[in-house]
Amino acid sequence: MELIDQVLGEINEVMGMVQEDQLKDAENIIQKDRRIFVLGAGRSGLMAKGFAMRLMHIGYTVYVVGETITPSIQLEDVLVSVSGSGKTGSVLELTQKAKDDGVKIVALTSNADSPLGQLGDATVVVPGATKTGDGVKSIQLLSSLFDQSVHVTLDVLTLMLSRRDHVSNDSAKSTHSNME
Amino acid sequence: MELIDQVLGEINEVMGMVQEDQLKDAENIIQKDRRIFVLGAGRSGLMAKGFAMRLMHIGYTVYVVGETITPSIQLEDVLVSVSGSGKTGSVLELTQKAKDDGVKIVALTSNADSPLGQLGDATVVVPGATKTGDGVKSIQLLSSLFDQSVHVTLDVLTLMLSRRDHVSNDSAKSTHSNME
Amino acid sequence: MELIDQVLGEINEVMGMVQEDQLKDAENIIQKDRRIFVLGAGRSGLMAKGFAMRLMHIGYTVYVVGETITPSIQLEDVLVSVSGSGKTGSVLELTQKAKDDGVKIVALTSNADSPLGQLGDATVVVPGATKTGDGVKSIQLLSSLFDQSVHVTLDVLTLMLSRRDHVSNDSAKSTHSNME
Amino acid sequence: MELIDQVLGEINEVMGMVQEDQLKDAENIIQKDRRIFVLGAGRSGLMAKGFAMRLMHIGYTVYVVGETITPSIQLEDVLVSVSGSGKTGSVLELTQKAKDDGVKIVALTSNADSPLGQLGDATVVVPGATKTGDGVKSIQLLSSLFDQSVHVTLDVLTLMLSRRDHVSNDSAKSTHSNME
Repeated sequence: MELIDQVLGEINEVMGMVQEDQLKDAENIIQKDRRIFVLGAGRSGLMAKGFAMRLMHIGYTVYVVGETITPSIQLEDVLVSVSGSGKTGSVLELTQKAKDDGVKIVALTSNADSPLGQLGDATVVVPGATKTGDGVKSIQLLSSLFDQSVHVTLDVLTLMLSRRDHVSNDSAKSTHSNME
Repeated sequence: MELIDQVLGEINEVMGMVQEDQLKDAENIIQKDRRIFVLGAGRSGLMAKGFAMRLMHIGYTVYVVGETITPSIQLEDVLVSVSGSGKTGSVLELTQKAKDDGVKIVALTSNADSPLGQLGDATVVVPGATKTGDGVKSIQLLSSLFDQSVHVTLDVLTLMLSRRDHVSNDSAKSTHSNME
Repeated sequence: MELIDQVLGEINEVMGMVQEDQLKDAENIIQKDRRIFVLGAGRSGLMAKGFAMRLMHIGYTVYVVGETITPSIQLEDVLVSVSGSGKTGSVLELTQKAKDDGVKIVALTSNADSPLGQLGDATVVVPGATKTGDGVKSIQLLSSLFDQSVHVTLDVLTLMLSRRDHVSNDSAKSTHSNME
Repeated sequence: MELIDQVLGEINEVMGMVQEDQLKDAENIIQKDRRIFVLGAGRSGLMAKGFAMRLMHIGYTVYVVGETITPSIQLEDVLVSVSGSGKTGSVLELTQKAKDDGVKIVALTSNADSPLGQLGDATVVVPGATKTGDGVKSIQLLSSLFDQSVHVTLDVLTLMLSRRDHVSNDSAKSTHSNME
């Protein structure tokens, strides 16, 4: 189907520009002896939640900023912040605050030069089109291409982490919610 | 103001019927070496979340069924289930499933004889009016009186737990989210 | 039970200080031909959601800031913002932004002189203890007394609106989610 | 990067098996004069929410089952249900209930023969690997390949709908939340 091919072509183009060394930097920061917090608004927030769920499945202590049981973030913690434009107000302010408190930042954005891109101790650039016009051009609405590409990027990062940590699919299955 | 007085009168009447020994039974099940899961739908779900947040503040490992980072529930865990009618479909089915797996159940409902009331290892009856007509009569809509009374009941239970566990207000403040 | 009596005593004291004319001001702003948005963080956010759910039940078009299907807020809309301290960062910034865009603000806070209190076109003061030390003193943790009192206050406001609009309990029941 | 290529290869393979006529069937059911509800658990639920957000952006009245302001679902409504295995308990039960009430069902699943697949008035098969072992084999954990593929599928469906309905990117931008 032509539309599917066009959308896949866009995703393949963006993913071809994601840099392995940036993913490695992110992998190095995300360690089991640190608590990981994730943050994002709108569809970026949904992608951040999907990543958090997988981190839980592979054995990390992880929290979603804004959910019920999320404690205060502290010096030794890691914050993974997602924003296509790198300029989403609430994401920026909370990331800046965490950075000021000494929290390590992993940033995912389409724009390395954006305020969020500049805050990352590790910044992974996913140059998909966003609603502010950054990144690879797209026939899709708003930041759909960024959302899709950051989804794939975070799942690749999960795969890297699960291999580094020697977590099997069966182990992940055993922690998957049984209350659905 | 007359409406306020009427509503407070209703809450006071319901709370006068909450039994101390039932709260003690719930307190005995909720221990720091167990993971606590909370479950509820609609406004009962919001009250369950409010309880979960406070349990986190006073040092418990706690999860909300349906939120992102909630793992599978296991034999040694505790499930706190809230339903005014005691008949909410999803709450009942998941509570039954957990019970079958050996999870300890704390049930909060307006009706001790309801299916949920019968599943509790500890059942706390909060006999506020619900949308199915149980409990103390109310001028308010739907299950508002139950929601209010279960809110107060769970906060009293929090107070009992924090005193038993010697948790201070300052300690609770230090775990309160600093990302708001 | 003594703890229950103490907690109820605190709630009764706070509710005795909620002013009818402030509730009337809020009632006057909340009209069926306007869209209503609600906003709050932490337990205040849960109380805001509980109010939103009831507004839906009695026939309003209502949205929760941060939930999935919430559209952009516009000139003719109303924003109901809840913060005990009146100083919660994200709540304040978004309320200020909405105010600048011409949105009508209903503020609920323990402190009329707080930044949020000052932003309200209608401000309802609910002087329960908060985690920053405002309001009636409490034996409870953090802002529990504020949460309880704002819960009751918003339910009284719901009752005022449902009577003004001639909405019956049966009508509310028919819009209540049947997917629980 | 080799891992990225492998993951993209998997997504491309799955998307090559998504059938255009099934997407057309789904498109025909989703109309502006109907209310659209979305339903899913875990990461499938996140993908369902992402679709709901876009439907809002392009002008639909849409609700997420389980969120605060979701009303009762009725005869003329549409339910979009997502489950990789097609067997997720809560999704199945609520979809069956809605179907019994005369609601039109759009199902997305990896398995046409699953219970959910059988309930669809339109069923879109997205044969990505799931945690129960259906679909195209994957090196990724659990149902990651299904999640990625259903994300792309729902975004393609959004694109089909926006073109059919003549909704521009600027129009979508104007409804995007301005409270982030």
